[in-house]
Amino acid sequence: MSLLAVGSIAFDSIRTPFGEVEEILGGSATFFSITASWFTSVSVVAVVGEDFGEQHFRVFRERSIDTRGVEQVPGRTFRWKGEYKGDMNQALTLDTQLNVFEKFVPKIPPAYLDTQFLFLGNIVPVLQLNVRRAFPNLRACALDTMNYWIKGMPDQLAEVLATVEILLVNEGEARMLSNQYNLKKAAAAIQKLGPRVVIIKRGEYGATLFGANSIFTVPAYFLDEVRDPTGAGDTFAGGFMGHLARSGDLSDANLRRSVVYGAVMGSFAVEEFGVGRLLHLTPDEIESRYREIKQLTHFDA
Amino acid sequence: MSLLAVGSIAFDSIRTPFGEVEEILGGSATFFSITASWFTSVSVVAVVGEDFGEQHFRVFRERSIDTRGVEQVPGRTFRWKGEYKGDMNQALTLDTQLNVFEKFVPKIPPAYLDTQFLFLGNIVPVLQLNVRRAFPNLRACALDTMNYWIKGMPDQLAEVLATVEILLVNEGEARMLSNQYNLKKAAAAIQKLGPRVVIIKRGEYGATLFGANSIFTVPAYFLDEVRDPTGAGDTFAGGFMGHLARSGDLSDANLRRSVVYGAVMGSFAVEEFGVGRLLHLTPDEIESRYREIKQLTHFDA
Repeated sequence: MSLLAVGSIAFDSIRTPFGEVEEILGGSATFFSITASWFTSVSVVAVVGEDFGEQHFRVFRERSIDTRGVEQVPGRTFRWKGEYKGDMNQALTLDTQLNVFEKFVPKIPPAYLDTQFLFLGNIVPVLQLNVRRAFPNLRACALDTMNYWIKGMPDQLAEVLATVEILLVNEGEARMLSNQYNLKKAAAAIQKLGPRVVIIKRGEYGATLFGANSIFTVPAYFLDEVRDPTGAGDTFAGGFMGHLARSGDLSDANLRRSVVYGAVMGSFAVEEFGVGRLLHLTPDEIESRYREIKQLTHFDA
Repeated sequence: MSLLAVGSIAFDSIRTPFGEVEEILGGSATFFSITASWFTSVSVVAVVGEDFGEQHFRVFRERSIDTRGVEQVPGRTFRWKGEYKGDMNQALTLDTQLNVFEKFVPKIPPAYLDTQFLFLGNIVPVLQLNVRRAFPNLRACALDTMNYWIKGMPDQLAEVLATVEILLVNEGEARMLSNQYNLKKAAAAIQKLGPRVVIIKRGEYGATLFGANSIFTVPAYFLDEVRDPTGAGDTFAGGFMGHLARSGDLSDANLRRSVVYGAVMGSFAVEEFGVGRLLHLTPDEIESRYREIKQLTHFDA
């Protein structure tokens, strides 16, 4: 089934202990859609500037991603510059230039209106709500957000939370949103705000799915080298929603499989800078890593 | 098969956001042996002072733990006072009185010499080595240690590491010992020092087993309330070694099951202060929580 992502497209400049890159393709909609394109047909709503060239659009089109919703407007594309030091657990933002992203108002092409699955990347909650309302008959909508909106726009965020089926947040965001340290209690409190499924991303420790009557935890795949953590969360979301949309199955068993695909794709994302690894995958590599995570977690009852 | 623990017996005074207790029974040998007693017959080598009364010995005997190796000497028993604040992830030591533990030299009763499985709790490495050498025909020996010895006595520690099959450490200790941040590389480096099995305890995130050709991760069970983290590591070790000794099976599949029993018992330990919960369990509760962890991690291949 079809999947739509709304979010950012950016040029990222990144330094990690493994190297440095300048103005490579990034942004939540980029990581999400390239990842999900390994599972199902994906379309994107985002905004770019005049500096976004044909070679950049081609990256999406070569993954068969529908970019009719990527609006090109006068000005420069969103730019982010960051550094990861030491254990690389935290990004240090060196520079943010919102540019055309500052006035982004998502416009949904009519051809997208039969979308069944929707991912609302991390943008201002009122825009997420407007997009959500354009799709009254979705199978499922997943939302990402961040501390900045949780703290700064709690009422707007509450309004959009009440309309989504799935929330994807990290541990710190879950705790801030719920005012609970204990993750089980945090998830229960968030479920009362709307989303019946809460997925808490735990970085190098994996992710935990809190469903209606079920908790499921997947560890992160153990890599020899993590070169660039940028986009890991959106990549996780892309694997999760990609498999969910491909299967069209919202059962607990399939939500679990979807979370594992999220972990699989997240592990590929961090192996190289930007979307480098995500563009050069094979379905066999994806399935093989899925089986490796099965092996990593299996024990006899 | 029989299991012997060498470690500390202490009186702990503990404050957490959930309450405060004074001079309750604690110490690595205490948590380990009471936990392992749910799986197999256990004996203990430790030292206590004159203030260690018949009521304290009775706690061990009521769990059928052989205390002939618990030496009582003039002076006071080891005392530790600590506090956990906020998220309770770190113990703040308020007072340590080694007392009789300062001059502890483990003495192995002859009746213990047919022991098949040995747990060397966190004591000075040279004493661990002496105990290890008293058992030339063990099935398996597991070692615990800490930053203090890793930093302060690396050569002594290397000597004992070369003689053990299993090392149990937390993430920080694994990284310090190996000088590697990446856990997979850290475990591989530690395996070169001796132990073919390295178990890295990850607190609220569970634990990871690095075997000869296999990695296995188990998450921590999600509790509504963590009241007192004291002894969780030794309790994990007690569940792990308890099941390993009970089964006498060192296969990869059974090492995995043993790690899950470690996680099961660790989750009980933190539900109440000290050994409170560990004394009042049923085999059904243990098996039921094992199945819950299976459910927490299961997904279809």
